[in-house]
Amino acid sequence: MAHMGPGSAGSTADPEYWHITGDSFPSIKSEMDAEEEPEHLTKIKLKLQDIQEAHSKIKKDIIFTPVVEAKHVGRKFCNVFFKLENLQYTGSFKARGACNALASLSHSERSKGCTISGGRNFLLAMTYYGHRYSIPTSVVVPRDCPIADRHRYRENYAVVKMYGSDQNDASLHALSYCEEIGTKHMHGYDRLDLMAGYGTIGLELLCQLDKIDAIICPVGSGGLIASLIVAVKSLKPKCLIYGAECASCPVMTRALQEKKPVMVQLNATIADSLANNIAGMNAFNVIKGYLDRIVTVDERMISRAMIMLLEREKLIVEGAAACPVAALLGGRVPELAGKIVVCIVSGGNVNSMRMARVIDRGLAADGRLVKFMATVPDVPGAIARLLVKVGETGADVRSMVPERTWMKRDIFSISVSKI
Amino acid sequence: MAHMGPGSAGSTADPEYWHITGDSFPSIKSEMDAEEEPEHLTKIKLKLQDIQEAHSKIKKDIIFTPVVEAKHVGRKFCNVFFKLENLQYTGSFKARGACNALASLSHSERSKGCTISGGRNFLLAMTYYGHRYSIPTSVVVPRDCPIADRHRYRENYAVVKMYGSDQNDASLHALSYCEEIGTKHMHGYDRLDLMAGYGTIGLELLCQLDKIDAIICPVGSGGLIASLIVAVKSLKPKCLIYGAECASCPVMTRALQEKKPVMVQLNATIADSLANNIAGMNAFNVIKGYLDRIVTVDERMISRAMIMLLEREKLIVEGAAACPVAALLGGRVPELAGKIVVCIVSGGNVNSMRMARVIDRGLAADGRLVKFMATVPDVPGAIARLLVKVGETGADVRSMVPERTWMKRDIFSISVSKI
Repeated sequence: MAHMGPGSAGSTADPEYWHITGDSFPSIKSEMDAEEEPEHLTKIKLKLQDIQEAHSKIKKDIIFTPVVEAKHVGRKFCNVFFKLENLQYTGSFKARGACNALASLSHSERSKGCTISGGRNFLLAMTYYGHRYSIPTSVVVPRDCPIADRHRYRENYAVVKMYGSDQNDASLHALSYCEEIGTKHMHGYDRLDLMAGYGTIGLELLCQLDKIDAIICPVGSGGLIASLIVAVKSLKPKCLIYGAECASCPVMTRALQEKKPVMVQLNATIADSLANNIAGMNAFNVIKGYLDRIVTVDERMISRAMIMLLEREKLIVEGAAACPVAALLGGRVPELAGKIVVCIVSGGNVNSMRMARVIDRGLAADGRLVKFMATVPDVPGAIARLLVKVGETGADVRSMVPERTWMKRDIFSISVSKI
Repeated sequence: MAHMGPGSAGSTADPEYWHITGDSFPSIKSEMDAEEEPEHLTKIKLKLQDIQEAHSKIKKDIIFTPVVEAKHVGRKFCNVFFKLENLQYTGSFKARGACNALASLSHSERSKGCTISGGRNFLLAMTYYGHRYSIPTSVVVPRDCPIADRHRYRENYAVVKMYGSDQNDASLHALSYCEEIGTKHMHGYDRLDLMAGYGTIGLELLCQLDKIDAIICPVGSGGLIASLIVAVKSLKPKCLIYGAECASCPVMTRALQEKKPVMVQLNATIADSLANNIAGMNAFNVIKGYLDRIVTVDERMISRAMIMLLEREKLIVEGAAACPVAALLGGRVPELAGKIVVCIVSGGNVNSMRMARVIDRGLAADGRLVKFMATVPDVPGAIARLLVKVGETGADVRSMVPERTWMKRDIFSISVSKI
């Protein structure tokens, strides 16, 4: 593993847990060993200093999110901590990037306002800080954007414009729309100002925990993990950084295989905020040489991780944020046994209806919700007797569908399905 | 408002937010003004010193839970913070009491073990610390105790015995059972050793926030709020302490009216861990003279508070823990406008199935889930046309029940219900 900087572990930890001021961050500058991997280094544009400057700029306007120890996840395997970006303003780490990007605008850019396109977490963050900094915002979303999301953008006083059938349509339209109304276009993809903001998570973490062996971070287009690599490996080179990607759209895994970002088919995933079809180039250049490992996790593991976080850790997380825990639960990282591992809980913006569905699927995956079919005689009291039998096992009946029409057996029996 | 002690506000706040050591707690002893209310004072058995001693005893084995600022609750009304006891070991503040009670046992009591009866949060906490301190535990629960709960007790290596049809039956049986097997009986009702543990929440809070105008705390039999009163009012007499009780079993409201604990009918409530039929005497004696106000909140407000905490604050809370927020949302505490208010999020142990139901009811209470009936002609394509109309409004159809049998209109129409 290549080291990105000369910082030693001992120099970074703030002895006063949770207590932090701007000055207590180590001022070691990222000086990469140019002789070791010369080609890479010229391509990496994000520097530790950018992240430190972002920290100074945004710290008063973001939440220094808590780190909590896992109570159940990793039990008997490793010591897990969660960095709770779901408790960040706007419910995700994107707040840090949005805050830095908007705080960096010039006075005239601020007064003209911004047109914004991108995913839900990005739009929530940008409209929130737009309102906070008195910057007028317009967002362009596809026509199928959920009512609840549009409502949240409007709560932040954004003008909401609907266009096209998917995110690409909306983003393209945003480009022409912002020229039309004379505002700056802000997208959320592979931008250095956003990444500098995201990286502040790494600076906080190093002050919150004296010892971290590994960090597992969700991977979409790669901005978050790349910025963590720059922040953490510059200051604590020995800390391992792992990426957890959803198997439905493994853009970074494919990019690492092909040695460059390549288009990947976009599949539906519960980790919807990771659904990108190509890795960001700035992110890829960092990740290429310095990521320790990337693993993919499937939908079922993500659901199980979400419900475990909900039930056992009392944390609301979105699918993307559950991927690191899914990697642990799925036994994908056996080499971390006995280690101190931080999972980045990147966000908690999951639709309530979807959360209710995840609970059901998670219970089913855990074998705590079962569906079965039984054929009973078509006489009074037969179904009641079946339900008594079920009750005796200690199980609860959630729903029941009597079926007489499509039965393949004699017409004197009926079938009962339970979910 | 009576003051319980001479501690001044200035002396209590630790200037280093989040940073705490055992020595940083103020050592002011609670010296109540005996001349002011002599009768009361002799009845109050819990002292600040008990809480401070509990803190020394348990601090290494409990979580110093985070305080986070509300992002949505209280917006434009007051500045709300949450003390996250749902992130405590075992998911509730009961961990503090259980830890103190078990840590206080003698060596011989420890080796004999304990028989425990009480509510879910208490049993979870006692079995967890029983295992942690190598104290064998047996729990007695009623026959209808959910499988998931029994599974959790067994995970903590407790022997689980089922007896009787309700909590009273189980508790009475525990009394004879512990004699039979020669263990100590531990219940969770109105015990000073538990309350001393609970009070450590107050000590932590005073170190975490420099300024607190008011604390709103859920009220069941009163142990938690009484211990907070002793801890907080001893050290910061000006801090208001409010209780939020569920309207379904208002034991403390009734006790305050009658000037003594009285039996109250036990009704089903979503805040199930507050469901007690009589206030504790030790708790009542503290609360009687020193509680600033008690308000009741109804089931609907509790559901709405739970869903708001889930969606906007990304917090999993049980019904009881949502009561303080329900009081704010329901406009029950208008005098707190503009104040710094801490809501005690007492626990997060809510059954997942119930959580899914709460989400539905909360959405319905918010008008985001609606049920309606429409009559359409009984011809092919009629229902499809109805659904297209619904889709055009931006709404999603969750479920649909066509009804032909019980229609009161002509037999050429059918009725469609949506939930």
